[in-house]
Amino acid sequence: MTEPRWIGIVLFDGFEELDAVGPWEVLAWWTQQHPEDGYGVTTLAREPGPVTAAKGMQLLPQHTFAEVPELDIVLFPGGRGTRPLMRDDAMLDWVRDRQTRASLMTSVCTGSLVYAAAGLLRDRPATTHHGSLAELSAADPTIKVDADARYVDDGDVITSAGVSAGIDMALHLVVRLAGEDRAREVRRGIQYDPEPPV
Amino acid sequence: MTEPRWIGIVLFDGFEELDAVGPWEVLAWWTQQHPEDGYGVTTLAREPGPVTAAKGMQLLPQHTFAEVPELDIVLFPGGRGTRPLMRDDAMLDWVRDRQTRASLMTSVCTGSLVYAAAGLLRDRPATTHHGSLAELSAADPTIKVDADARYVDDGDVITSAGVSAGIDMALHLVVRLAGEDRAREVRRGIQYDPEPPV
Repeated sequence: MTEPRWIGIVLFDGFEELDAVGPWEVLAWWTQQHPEDGYGVTTLAREPGPVTAAKGMQLLPQHTFAEVPELDIVLFPGGRGTRPLMRDDAMLDWVRDRQTRASLMTSVCTGSLVYAAAGLLRDRPATTHHGSLAELSAADPTIKVDADARYVDDGDVITSAGVSAGIDMALHLVVRLAGEDRAREVRRGIQYDPEPPV
Repeated sequence: MTEPRWIGIVLFDGFEELDAVGPWEVLAWWTQQHPEDGYGVTTLAREPGPVTAAKGMQLLPQHTFAEVPELDIVLFPGGRGTRPLMRDDAMLDWVRDRQTRASLMTSVCTGSLVYAAAGLLRDRPATTHHGSLAELSAADPTIKVDADARYVDDGDVITSAGVSAGIDMALHLVVRLAGEDRAREVRRGIQYDPEPPV
């Protein structure tokens, strides 16, 4: 067995639960059913120990920043915890450093605000939660904010809209990395045939 | 402040991550934005300490069975961890006892297998993950298995289809408990306008 290419979901205090766990479900379903595709998914946080999410759920990261395997893809969730990170030089340096080493940086919801603050979205198209579009523009006025997209794939950076949009973005990732048939299989596995009752 | 009516999401080894966290996001968004509606949502497990979900994520429950506040609504996720619970007399007794005290028992995915094993679904319509419909019938042949429904609302018991169907079921719960406008607001909050790319 060769080491998989790792997709790392970043956990931090105040991350929005579904921003992380929606993509986690899609990517873990895929990579655990099909290790032969060559990818794995994990979670990481700065420090060991429980991380408290935006709505109060507590998760234990699988790795710390210091000892996580090299990441091929980074996924940054949103949530109110992103706001202090926009002024957190150590985190912004970490994001910039990861971009130079990873093949793909992805975000869900207001995770893109952290990428914007780190300069990753300069002159690029990007999106975020519908309630934070102006905040994204303010963080970096060169961003071509897309208010309508479910996710924006700009090659080596993908940003997505709010919360549940991360599920669609993660399925798009499976399409990119393993093809449409595989993504359809994952969609069927998690029975993602949404019928919102309102 | 009067004590809210509590909705309790049961965590157990091998529960499927999105089965629990999808409804959690919907219900936590609602109850934290609108405490005046009189509901709160929490998580519970038999024992304190981390619970390892089906895909390997670890969560810390907010309560143990022994000290959780009285629950008005129980939500039982699915996942491969449900299979041992179908033969776990202490858990089945706990489920039966909760049914006598709660106003509503709900499940996501193969959570309904545990309800079936406990006798809660006798002569009732119910559903589960598309891959476990036969298993549901086998667990209790009197169940009127609905293979097509996203969720089945049978009054004091609601069962839903696989994994992501829990998000739709949770929105339906908000409709029942707080009305369509509120559910629409929550849907907008979590930007649940699904556009699966495949």
